[in-house]
Amino acid sequence: MKLTILGCYSATPRTNTNPTSQVLEIKNHTFLIDCGEGTQVELRRNKIKFSRIKHIFISHLHGDHCFGLVGLVSTFRLLTREADLHVYAPKGLKEVITLQMKLSDSWTNYRLIFHELTSTTSELIYEDDKVEVYTIPLEHRIYTNGFLFKEKLGERKLDMNAVLNADIEVSYYRKLKQGFDVENRQGAVVENKTVTRDPNKPKSYAFCSDTAYSESILPIIKDVDVLYHESTFLEQNKELAESTKHSTAKQAAKIAKMSNSGTLILGHYSTRYDDLSIFKKEAEPIFKNTKLAVDGKVFNFD
Amino acid sequence: MKLTILGCYSATPRTNTNPTSQVLEIKNHTFLIDCGEGTQVELRRNKIKFSRIKHIFISHLHGDHCFGLVGLVSTFRLLTREADLHVYAPKGLKEVITLQMKLSDSWTNYRLIFHELTSTTSELIYEDDKVEVYTIPLEHRIYTNGFLFKEKLGERKLDMNAVLNADIEVSYYRKLKQGFDVENRQGAVVENKTVTRDPNKPKSYAFCSDTAYSESILPIIKDVDVLYHESTFLEQNKELAESTKHSTAKQAAKIAKMSNSGTLILGHYSTRYDDLSIFKKEAEPIFKNTKLAVDGKVFNFD
Repeated sequence: MKLTILGCYSATPRTNTNPTSQVLEIKNHTFLIDCGEGTQVELRRNKIKFSRIKHIFISHLHGDHCFGLVGLVSTFRLLTREADLHVYAPKGLKEVITLQMKLSDSWTNYRLIFHELTSTTSELIYEDDKVEVYTIPLEHRIYTNGFLFKEKLGERKLDMNAVLNADIEVSYYRKLKQGFDVENRQGAVVENKTVTRDPNKPKSYAFCSDTAYSESILPIIKDVDVLYHESTFLEQNKELAESTKHSTAKQAAKIAKMSNSGTLILGHYSTRYDDLSIFKKEAEPIFKNTKLAVDGKVFNFD
Repeated sequence: MKLTILGCYSATPRTNTNPTSQVLEIKNHTFLIDCGEGTQVELRRNKIKFSRIKHIFISHLHGDHCFGLVGLVSTFRLLTREADLHVYAPKGLKEVITLQMKLSDSWTNYRLIFHELTSTTSELIYEDDKVEVYTIPLEHRIYTNGFLFKEKLGERKLDMNAVLNADIEVSYYRKLKQGFDVENRQGAVVENKTVTRDPNKPKSYAFCSDTAYSESILPIIKDVDVLYHESTFLEQNKELAESTKHSTAKQAAKIAKMSNSGTLILGHYSTRYDDLSIFKKEAEPIFKNTKLAVDGKVFNFD
């Protein structure tokens, strides 16, 4: 599992800071999360292959999280994309993108499939044999979802030495991976756990931006490996966080602690702060394993 | 008159090239022309004060000319702009911007006034005592206008030595600037031209992008001081220019020559060409005074 931060600042793109966008590589997927203005340029800068992106998740319709989508969708067209593109976003974005396509007479030559989100309770919005993605309803000024990405438990791993010693036919290997006991060539039952090992522990990633401090998300993100939680403000601007429905670094740390997250990544900083290290200092006394998102930074969780 | 090129490439923004946007400073105005994705960042990079921009002219609704507008409009709001903002653009853009504002629940706290363009003949769209702006209907795949910016002839300039020698009362200075003969303190008629000088020659700038080669624009841009004419392609890709309704550098030069322009600036290059100097080489045999637009380049015409 690998996370690339394309942008992690709030409000407006500036010469040296990008609005929210990140790429989560998990189980051979390249998921794009949020798409502020300039995201397509940051994808190039970070050498993310455009063709790898098949699913885009948009948290909410404030500009710093979605104004880059129409440009990316158009660029995909110019690059003669053919693969389907799925966009999971609050209801309304489909209308915006469709209207702009219509006005520029530039219909996509690939299938652009919108999954319009309206639910205020967590729902499963994507699933395949390796991964599932749930919404995390957040508390913001407009309808907003975070996203929980969960690897599924994989198959058991064969201990090939043990398998060969036990003299098991190749046609039984599949059943072994699925956890069954099997018979060997001599007709003796081989207990599964004597010839297989546990699969890798499934990893999970929760993206929570933008949101006020909200304990209602705790049951959804419980025990998540990596939590990205917005910290637009520091405690010194707690009132501002409250009135704009954002969080402070301290509040993000509390959520990380209460949810028993493995790692906390802070981001969505207001551009009023020059020194990001203070965010870390504010969070660490409550949650030790705190990291700072930085534009262009890559986190590896393997 | 000063022109700053924020972006001069066609199609998609890339790491080192920006889509179309430029700033024309003329008679104390700061006009923004086109607004591709990332324009607000380029405005910052080129140190153009956001508050100076009161009029934005959008040629057409292809993304590389307008996808940056909604972000700029939003940023103006975050910067607590109060001054009116006028946008001159093809019909449809108002609907796009309004829809996005509505969905993000972010109405502007300043007046955002759209002047929706639909005419297929040249029309006067802005005028004050110093400047007038006309549309230049262009020939492109969708409804497109270029823009002609013309300084008005200013007042005559007082030759102060001559005025004082002629013993003219201060209250007559205004009439002198307006070109009238006046009486001096002794009651003698003073001929205007003996105490005033001609005003500066009014300057003009024509922005023509995107367009196929079209001689129909010649009467509108005749004798223009500076002509920006798109040259998406070179002659080696003439067929491509024709099928996509763009121009070659040679065709741009022909238009500059036939319109008796003072200076030709080429731009809107396809990113397929690495070496821009070939555009200049192709145009110069037909029109000597050819210059190349480059992102971040400033042209002074004083």
